[in-house]
Amino acid sequence: MPNFLYKIETAMINSKNTLPLAIAQIEKAHDTIRPMVHRTPILTSNSLDQISGARLFFKCENFQKIGAFKIRGAVNALSNLSEEEKQRGVATHSSGNHAQAIASTAQSLGMQAWIVMPDTSPKIKKIAVEGYGAEIIESKANIESRETKLNEVVQKTGATFIHPFDNYDVIAGQATCAKELIEDTDDLDIIMAPVGGGGLLSGTALSTYYFSPNTRVIGAEPKEVDDAFRSMQLGVIQKNSSLNTIADGLKTNLGEKTFPIIKSLVEEIITVSEEEIINAMRLIWERMKIIIEPSCAVPFAAVLQQPEKFKDKKVGIILTGGNVDVEKLPF
Amino acid sequence: MPNFLYKIETAMINSKNTLPLAIAQIEKAHDTIRPMVHRTPILTSNSLDQISGARLFFKCENFQKIGAFKIRGAVNALSNLSEEEKQRGVATHSSGNHAQAIASTAQSLGMQAWIVMPDTSPKIKKIAVEGYGAEIIESKANIESRETKLNEVVQKTGATFIHPFDNYDVIAGQATCAKELIEDTDDLDIIMAPVGGGGLLSGTALSTYYFSPNTRVIGAEPKEVDDAFRSMQLGVIQKNSSLNTIADGLKTNLGEKTFPIIKSLVEEIITVSEEEIINAMRLIWERMKIIIEPSCAVPFAAVLQQPEKFKDKKVGIILTGGNVDVEKLPF
Repeated sequence: MPNFLYKIETAMINSKNTLPLAIAQIEKAHDTIRPMVHRTPILTSNSLDQISGARLFFKCENFQKIGAFKIRGAVNALSNLSEEEKQRGVATHSSGNHAQAIASTAQSLGMQAWIVMPDTSPKIKKIAVEGYGAEIIESKANIESRETKLNEVVQKTGATFIHPFDNYDVIAGQATCAKELIEDTDDLDIIMAPVGGGGLLSGTALSTYYFSPNTRVIGAEPKEVDDAFRSMQLGVIQKNSSLNTIADGLKTNLGEKTFPIIKSLVEEIITVSEEEIINAMRLIWERMKIIIEPSCAVPFAAVLQQPEKFKDKKVGIILTGGNVDVEKLPF
Repeated sequence: MPNFLYKIETAMINSKNTLPLAIAQIEKAHDTIRPMVHRTPILTSNSLDQISGARLFFKCENFQKIGAFKIRGAVNALSNLSEEEKQRGVATHSSGNHAQAIASTAQSLGMQAWIVMPDTSPKIKKIAVEGYGAEIIESKANIESRETKLNEVVQKTGATFIHPFDNYDVIAGQATCAKELIEDTDDLDIIMAPVGGGGLLSGTALSTYYFSPNTRVIGAEPKEVDDAFRSMQLGVIQKNSSLNTIADGLKTNLGEKTFPIIKSLVEEIITVSEEEIINAMRLIWERMKIIIEPSCAVPFAAVLQQPEKFKDKKVGIILTGGNVDVEKLPF
């Protein structure tokens, strides 16, 4: 059975005969965000092609506004709010790129934003968020405290909570990244993205399904936080017991909205060791001369781990962001 | 008097009524090297424009083959050798990008290369040069030993010595970088390059003079090795007494061929402190997400030092290379 048919069938079975986002919603998301985000370049590297044996096409979201793909989902989600919701503002919890994405987008759209951040967040991240005019609410560094603080601010202000990934407008926004990768390349065999909460990977899978149905989608995650790998094996969402990875964007568990899409449309999740991540990150830094976050290196690490799988294949890899603390490098 | 006329007059006076390289030689160099080098992209950054007050256009030679502009001069110089010279091979002394450029080009053109490198060179640089099939001859880390070893190999093999910068074919090759920058932008007010031996800056000045005569050329160098600044002041080549700079590509004194061109066509040399270099390098890393060598950051550091001079000006900056040891960063 051709791969395409298999995918349709699986998708039908797993999502009550319909996927939660239609092709038109992703196309609309792209139209919505286009004026506010960069169409990032796709880079190739002869050197990394030689090392890997594959033909690699890197979609460089490290060059995106705020330095990460998260701006796509934030712009789409905030743009889709009603006028009344926009008046009341938005809230979220994040210590990373989603915080900056929401704060920056809210500022651009003239909205108030409240960001719950753990009191352990680096000062530089707080300054960046405040620089966009958002208000920071400190929580303890645990889920209960974070959710309590978030509920408090939502109750008090009437702000709309924008989940970092388990939100269809966010997923549709992240989907535009693979859509551009597909539009700007020809006949990719495989598209790869890292998986944390699954916002990017589910969006990637949807865009690939709609815009390049013969292309396979493979996710990659650190062995240390292999919740997505285990969730796929067992068919229900698994949680991470430890968070001991350098890929700090990938510590989150899958969500109720992202997992069914991933289960339907993603062929496989490959897990890689911390050493493999650091090695892959260093190769990209040294050979491509671009700065990427550790999370971005995870799919390339998977390619290096399984050369026979990717040999001579045209592989699109989403480099998710470039926000690293240059004073704390793993080299 | 318009700037253009001033330049012509100065050039006429200083170079015996004629410049040592004609426009046709730079055009020919470009045709020669085009199949063997990348046409590197020009990047802009809203963030760095805001910080500097200028409109900056970065010519990214960090994405060039071997990770630096030096491949341009090497390809042109080696391609211009006679068949007999090609048979005998080439020799040079360098511990940096010129060594790799010569070794790589010699391999591509099927020539033998001998590279004199100080015995203090990092092992990784020796491995890179040997990886291109070149033979390394070790010298002590001083000029006398280096020149003795070089003369020995030239005498013994009949190889042609390719000077890292004081060679008109090398200068014409480096000139193609500013030529591309001019072709791919509109009406730059200023073009900037760092200055070490002056191969890049003299080539930049020539291309600007020929292809964009209303554009001014400004060089930049570390205060710690300000030989070019002092040479311009005094009208004769000055030497550095200390070499205490992080910008290891810029420690060299100007050459007999590069200095007259620079004296004729470069408006000014701006010197910057080590702290200013590191700050500028870090800004480019963090805001543009690209990896550049410390030497590249020197012109941008000069822009930040003198904001009034560059305010609202369209400034082209040549980012010379991206070969840094990620284990030894100044942050």
